[in-house]
Amino acid sequence: MASREKWRNKYSEWFSWLISTAEIYDYGRYPVQGMGVWMPYGFKIRKYILDIIREKLDSRGHEEILLPLLIPEDLLRRESEHIKGFEAEVYWVTHGGDTPLGVKLALRPTSETSLSYMESLWIKSYKQLPKKYYQVVSIFRYETKATRAMIRLREVTTFKEAHTLHADYEDTERQVLEAIEIYKEIYDDLGIPYIISKRPDWDKFAGALYTIAFDTVMPDGRVLQIGTVHNLGQSFTKAFEVKIQLEDGSLDYAWQTSYGISDRIVATLLSVHGDDRGAVLPPNVAPIQVVVVPIPVAGGIGEDLRSYVDKVVALLKSRGFRVHVDDREDVRPGAKYYEWELRGVPVRLEIGGREVEESTVTVARRDTLEKTMVKLEELVDHLEEVFEDIRRNLKEKAWRFLEENVFRTTSLEEARKAIAEKRGIVELPWCGSDECGLKMEELIDAKCLGSPLERPSWVRGVRCPVCGGGAVTSMRLAKTY
Amino acid sequence: MASREKWRNKYSEWFSWLISTAEIYDYGRYPVQGMGVWMPYGFKIRKYILDIIREKLDSRGHEEILLPLLIPEDLLRRESEHIKGFEAEVYWVTHGGDTPLGVKLALRPTSETSLSYMESLWIKSYKQLPKKYYQVVSIFRYETKATRAMIRLREVTTFKEAHTLHADYEDTERQVLEAIEIYKEIYDDLGIPYIISKRPDWDKFAGALYTIAFDTVMPDGRVLQIGTVHNLGQSFTKAFEVKIQLEDGSLDYAWQTSYGISDRIVATLLSVHGDDRGAVLPPNVAPIQVVVVPIPVAGGIGEDLRSYVDKVVALLKSRGFRVHVDDREDVRPGAKYYEWELRGVPVRLEIGGREVEESTVTVARRDTLEKTMVKLEELVDHLEEVFEDIRRNLKEKAWRFLEENVFRTTSLEEARKAIAEKRGIVELPWCGSDECGLKMEELIDAKCLGSPLERPSWVRGVRCPVCGGGAVTSMRLAKTY
Repeated sequence: MASREKWRNKYSEWFSWLISTAEIYDYGRYPVQGMGVWMPYGFKIRKYILDIIREKLDSRGHEEILLPLLIPEDLLRRESEHIKGFEAEVYWVTHGGDTPLGVKLALRPTSETSLSYMESLWIKSYKQLPKKYYQVVSIFRYETKATRAMIRLREVTTFKEAHTLHADYEDTERQVLEAIEIYKEIYDDLGIPYIISKRPDWDKFAGALYTIAFDTVMPDGRVLQIGTVHNLGQSFTKAFEVKIQLEDGSLDYAWQTSYGISDRIVATLLSVHGDDRGAVLPPNVAPIQVVVVPIPVAGGIGEDLRSYVDKVVALLKSRGFRVHVDDREDVRPGAKYYEWELRGVPVRLEIGGREVEESTVTVARRDTLEKTMVKLEELVDHLEEVFEDIRRNLKEKAWRFLEENVFRTTSLEEARKAIAEKRGIVELPWCGSDECGLKMEELIDAKCLGSPLERPSWVRGVRCPVCGGGAVTSMRLAKTY
Repeated sequence: MASREKWRNKYSEWFSWLISTAEIYDYGRYPVQGMGVWMPYGFKIRKYILDIIREKLDSRGHEEILLPLLIPEDLLRRESEHIKGFEAEVYWVTHGGDTPLGVKLALRPTSETSLSYMESLWIKSYKQLPKKYYQVVSIFRYETKATRAMIRLREVTTFKEAHTLHADYEDTERQVLEAIEIYKEIYDDLGIPYIISKRPDWDKFAGALYTIAFDTVMPDGRVLQIGTVHNLGQSFTKAFEVKIQLEDGSLDYAWQTSYGISDRIVATLLSVHGDDRGAVLPPNVAPIQVVVVPIPVAGGIGEDLRSYVDKVVALLKSRGFRVHVDDREDVRPGAKYYEWELRGVPVRLEIGGREVEESTVTVARRDTLEKTMVKLEELVDHLEEVFEDIRRNLKEKAWRFLEENVFRTTSLEEARKAIAEKRGIVELPWCGSDECGLKMEELIDAKCLGSPLERPSWVRGVRCPVCGGGAVTSMRLAKTY
C-alpha cells in the first residue's frame, strides 16, 4: 500500500524503467517520435494477449482479414463526420520515389472506410448477415498531444479492430452487448479491472451513433481508456452504398458496429499488476511461467544437481508449462532472482543440494514473494493451484484498487477536491444535458467519461448539482491520459 | 498433363479466377493499385503457412520483434548502396494533417536500416552473439512494373524478414547455410519445389556481399523468386556504428545476414498444387481438412443421418482434425462438392443412408478425386494415411514438374529455342565473367538466375558458349516474373 501511494507520483518513471530494463519495449530512442520497438520478451507478452483476444473473437464467429494500410483521400473523406474527427491527425503519403501521387494516400487511422468500401462489393443480402470481421494491424495518428510509450503513440502497433454488419438496428444493439461481453472476458482473463461508460455525445467516435468505453484507473490515479465499442448505425453504409436485400425483397442500407483494443492493453496489464520489483505477469500471458534456478553446491553445478534439474524441467514441459532454466555460471543466484522478478515470471523454482537430497523443490511466488518447499511428486498439482491463486490474487488486488478510486458524491466541491487531491474517478448525479456535463468538466477540472449503461439507483430523487434539475443518471469524471 | 499444357497459356487467368472465386484474396478492386485484401479463407491459409515459418525460425533461436513502419529519410540514406537500390520505389510520408514534416518518412521497403540502428543500441559484446531477429510485416514498394496479385504488390502484406548479427565473417557463412536449411524445410513442408542459385553480382540485394535465392517454375513456365538469403557483411554495421567488443578485447563492426519470404509463398502454394477445379491444399495448411457432406435421404437430413454425422464429426474433432459440416438444406450435394473442391479441402466425407446403415463413410480425396468406402472404426487411421499420401503425392508431382522444366545444354541456340518455345529454366556452362553472363541474357532473351552453390560436375572440360573459355560453373536463365 505504501508502495501504491508512492506510485502516484513516480508511476510514469517506473513504467519507463520497467519496459526498458525488462527489455519489453524500446521507446524514445527510435528516431521518430511516438514510435517504439517491441523487443523479443515484450513481443511474446503481446502475442499471448493477442492469442486470448483472437480466441474470444473466433469463438463468437468473427473472421480475421487484412485490409491495405493505405486509404485514398477520397475514400477517407466520403463520410463527413468521420473525416472531421481524424483530419488533423492523418499521415499522408504524397510521393512514390520522386513521383507525386495522383491521389494522396492516408496511413489508416482506423478502417471503417476501407472495409465499408469492400463490404459494398461483398455483401448483397440479409442472408449473409450478421457478418463479423476483425484485423490486428498498425494504425497511425499524428498526435499533437504529448506521446507516451504504448499509451499515446503515433504508430499504434497492436490495433485489434472488429467490424460487424447487420440487417437491422436491433441486431447492432445485440452486437454491442456481445462486444461488451467479449471485452469483459478478455479483461477478466488478464485480471484487468474496468468501468464501463456510455461516452457523452460530444466525445463519441467520429461517425458513430454512440460509443461505449472501457476505462481503468492507472497507478497514478489517472484514467486510461482501454477499449471502445461503437454503434455506427448506417453512417458508413450510406456513404459507401452498402445496400442489402432484406427478407421482404426490399433494399436498404446495412447497419454496422465496430470495436477496438490497442497496445494500451499491454501497458495496462504491466501497470495494474506491477510492483517496485517490476512486472508481475498472470501465468496465462507469461512468456516464461516457471524459471528454474539451480543453486550451485560448493561453487558449481554438479552432475547430481544438473540431472535432478533436467528431471524437473522434463516433467514440467511434458505437462505444458513454459519453463526456462537459468544455468548461467557467471551470474549469482541473487542476481538471477532480481532479473526474473523484474520480468514478472510468476513462479521461480530454486533447486540446490537440499532439494536434490530430499527430492523437493523450493517454489517462490512472484506476486506474494512467498517461498514453499514442495515434494517433487506434488509439484505439478501445486503449480496448478499456485497459478490459479496468482490469477485470483492479482485480479482481486487490481479490482480493489479500482473500487477504492471511484468516489460517489452529490457535491461539486467534494468532487473537485477529490480529483485535485487523489485523482481517480468521481461520479455525480446528472440531469443528462450536454450543457451541465460540459459545465461539470469546467467546475471540477476533469474530463467526462460518461454514464453507466443502466441508470444507477442512488441518483433517484437526487438533483443535478449544476442546474438543480432531477438527475436521470450519473456522470463520471476523471483526469485522463 | 493435358491440363498442365493448357495452363501454360491460361495460368494467369486461372489464378485470378481461383483467388476471387474461392474468396482467398480480393485483388484489383481496392482503389489503390497493387494492394489487395486477405479474405477470411485466404487469411487462414496464410496463417497456417506463417505458423510453419515461425516454428522453423523459433526452434533455431530466432526471436520475433516489431519495428516501426516509418523510417526517417536520413536513416534510410545512411548506407549508400542500399538507398540506390530502393530510391525509386520508396513511398514517402510528407505531411501529418496539414503540417509538413521536418523529415520525410519512408514506408519501410525492408528493415535493415531501422534494425541496424537499434542494434547499435542493443548489442555491445560478442557474448550476445549470434543474435537472430525476425518480424512479419507489411513492406511497400512503388513498383513501376505491372503489379500482380500476391506476386508483385505495392503493399507486400506478408513479409517475413529475418536479420542476424555475428562476431565474424565465418559465422555469417554458417548462418547463410542455416537459413538455406530453414527455407528448404519450409518449402518441403508445403511440397513446393525450388532451385537454389547464387544470384549474379549485378543482381544481388542492395548492400549485400552476395545473395542466394530460391526460385520455382510457375505453371506457365515463368520463374518466380520465392525466397532470398543475403550475406550483408559489414555494410550496415559500418553505416550504423554497430560496434562490438570481441573476445580479445578489441572493438570491431559486427557482421550480418538477412533473409526474407513474402506473400509469394501463398501464391506458389496455390499455383504449384492447383488444378482445373481450383486449389489443392496440403492438409497441414488447409483451413478445413475434412468437409462432411450429408446426403439427404428422401429429400431431407433425417434424425438418423444427423446423429451419425454428429458422431463422425465428434470423433474427428477429438483427434484434432479441422472439420466442417456442410448441412445447408438449400444447396445440392453436387454444388457443395464443387465449392469445396474449388477451395482445396483435402478430404470430403460423403455420408448418406447406406453409410449410416453400414457404419461407414465415403472418403473422397481432393488430389486424385478417388473415392473409398471406409469403416467408421478405421476412419482416423485411414485419414492419417491419406493425409500423408496427399502430402507425398503433391510434393512429388510438383517436383516432377520443376525437373521437367530445367534444361541443360551447351548450345546458346538450343537454349534460346527452349526458352522461346517452353520457357522453364535453361542451364549453360559459364566462364564466370559478368560480361559473358550479361551477353547470355541478351542472346537467349532471358534473365540470369545465377549459379548452383557448388560447381556442377557436368561443366568439367566444357567451354563457355559465349567466350569459349573454360567453364567454372553453370549459369541458369529463365523468363521471370
